[in-house]
Amino acid sequence: MQAAELPLAGVVVLDFSQFLAGPVAALRLADLGARVIKIERPVTGEIGRTLAFAGRWADEDTVSFHAMNRNKEAVVADLKDPGELEQVKSLVARADVLIHNFRPGVMERLGLDYESARALNPGLVYAAASGYGADGPWASRPGQDLLAQSVSGLTWVNGGDRPVTVGLSLADHLLSCHLAEGVTALLVRKLRTGRGGLIETSLLEGMLDLQSTLLTAHLNKSAPDPADTLTPHSLYPTADGYLAIAPTRRDNLIQALVNNSASAPAAGPAGSESWVAEQLLAAGTAYWLEVLGEVGIECAPLRTLDELIASPEFAAIEMTQTVERPPAEPGGESLRLTTTRSPIRIDGKVLRNHRAAPRLGAQGRLHNGADPLAEAGPVDE
Amino acid sequence: MQAAELPLAGVVVLDFSQFLAGPVAALRLADLGARVIKIERPVTGEIGRTLAFAGRWADEDTVSFHAMNRNKEAVVADLKDPGELEQVKSLVARADVLIHNFRPGVMERLGLDYESARALNPGLVYAAASGYGADGPWASRPGQDLLAQSVSGLTWVNGGDRPVTVGLSLADHLLSCHLAEGVTALLVRKLRTGRGGLIETSLLEGMLDLQSTLLTAHLNKSAPDPADTLTPHSLYPTADGYLAIAPTRRDNLIQALVNNSASAPAAGPAGSESWVAEQLLAAGTAYWLEVLGEVGIECAPLRTLDELIASPEFAAIEMTQTVERPPAEPGGESLRLTTTRSPIRIDGKVLRNHRAAPRLGAQGRLHNGADPLAEAGPVDE
Repeated sequence: MQAAELPLAGVVVLDFSQFLAGPVAALRLADLGARVIKIERPVTGEIGRTLAFAGRWADEDTVSFHAMNRNKEAVVADLKDPGELEQVKSLVARADVLIHNFRPGVMERLGLDYESARALNPGLVYAAASGYGADGPWASRPGQDLLAQSVSGLTWVNGGDRPVTVGLSLADHLLSCHLAEGVTALLVRKLRTGRGGLIETSLLEGMLDLQSTLLTAHLNKSAPDPADTLTPHSLYPTADGYLAIAPTRRDNLIQALVNNSASAPAAGPAGSESWVAEQLLAAGTAYWLEVLGEVGIECAPLRTLDELIASPEFAAIEMTQTVERPPAEPGGESLRLTTTRSPIRIDGKVLRNHRAAPRLGAQGRLHNGADPLAEAGPVDE
Repeated sequence: MQAAELPLAGVVVLDFSQFLAGPVAALRLADLGARVIKIERPVTGEIGRTLAFAGRWADEDTVSFHAMNRNKEAVVADLKDPGELEQVKSLVARADVLIHNFRPGVMERLGLDYESARALNPGLVYAAASGYGADGPWASRPGQDLLAQSVSGLTWVNGGDRPVTVGLSLADHLLSCHLAEGVTALLVRKLRTGRGGLIETSLLEGMLDLQSTLLTAHLNKSAPDPADTLTPHSLYPTADGYLAIAPTRRDNLIQALVNNSASAPAAGPAGSESWVAEQLLAAGTAYWLEVLGEVGIECAPLRTLDELIASPEFAAIEMTQTVERPPAEPGGESLRLTTTRSPIRIDGKVLRNHRAAPRLGAQGRLHNGADPLAEAGPVDE
């Protein structure tokens, strides 16, 4: 897709945020065509460059940093240096979007809080991400994914009789979605009215939004209907693996198991949960996929990530792309990485860009009058 | 917030989709100010009205339907009736956004596929949600949340040594976010160029996006760094509950446990995982929150949803709102429900609206020249 055809072409985003939700929100905007410039501290850059996720590295940055920061630019600025801070403010005055996830008070001390930034640039869309909101008793608590999952109730929903966390940064991931959506919606209003605005969201709000139906049931103390005949979401062991069965009418499932029984008559009462489990254990996953699928019971095999990657279905969805980082020194080797792309297709095309995550300060340091916005952004594919 | 100030004020969305991702995507747009009109089949309406989630009901619709469909309008149309289909096409010709999640072929047969709809309305933003994309070997498979989780590899990531599903419709929820983001980004392009466009995404793409870092590590076969010294995400039993400890340097954690030991000298080697667990089991959650928090180790209590709801922190985040559905007959009683709000704050304000989910056909049936767009939408709060 031509760069000018991308939905957010021409939008300039300054990203002050660190691992994880802010950079991923900025990535979503970059994938849709925005020009994203990371503003990082000298020497170490944002914490995501070195915070090892499963301990993996590529070319001096973590693999997770690469996955979250492809297709961006990077400048270095010491926000404690008055001259460099002034240059940052000059960028803010000309940008469309600012993203940060500093703790309360940091942007105020820098003179880059919403009101101050709005004075510099009335058209600025200002996005602030936090753990638990800007006010309230939790405002100063560490906004960390596991902690947000833990206080939100989700670990009990997930595990049933014992608490289980989702083994991924789910709260951060959801926050990245809501940040990107809020920014994009305010860009719509900016085009309509010329005005910028403030979007705020947090880990906790994203976790509560995820549990909206459960919360609504709890808040209204509505009782379950005893006539409910859907089976729960269930994963069953089979003779050679696992089978996932989507919610279905229990009598349909029982009839299908009776008709296709692969085991001796069961000891327990027909139709009990243990009877269902015993039936399914008596044949392989492929058998059940076929015979249950034939009668319209929706089911699927359980795949590991590596099994999925090896499948033709994975190739068909075109979810990967190769990004390239030029060598640090002339004559060196480029780094090539295979990573994912945006989950969104626009006008029938997947959104791909070959640019890898930038080295720290790839677009220079903000001193001596350096001005990344004086140059056109890199040409997209 | 005044309705005209909402970011998507003036945007008209026609939603043909059914439970779950499409209606939730439309809800996100409604929360941001769009006018959403559900187009439903006669008699039963969309399947979400009757598909019981935990079997709960309120005023003839499920609680989950209420949670997902507040702040919308609803018209009924029989798409198999040529006259009513023509009236639907007349709405499509004047709308800004169309959302559907029909299986491949359905919209083509109705003459409402993207190319046909674009011919009616070149400015239309057309959003199509699916299970596994429009093409490929899985295109015709049932797009269902548990199945998408199961084939995506997530159940193994989540459970570790045994597969565990996330006990919520996570794949659908993520799809709703990506649908809303793609639509909103195309509204930006529409304002800039006048042109509409097509946004497509799927359950599987959302699940892969969630696992982007893991996928990138697998795809590049990068090895873990043995020097990795962060503790994993962990939930530990304490004397009176559970404690969540965010990733932290293991030597810091061990030192803090030694300094604040509440147990007799442990049997196992100091610093082993079982030693850590034994230390934590010897005192209550509140004790560990205090002493570990003092030395900067981020931790949190595990709360159930009901414990969270009862907390002052839950009140502080203002995540709830009350919606009201007028009585079906004059003199009847209104239904009042407490539910969640958008996780996004705009210009410092939470987004609230008192309108409950509409009854089936609340805005009438599309025959005899009925035209919901001839009337202004309801006035928002």
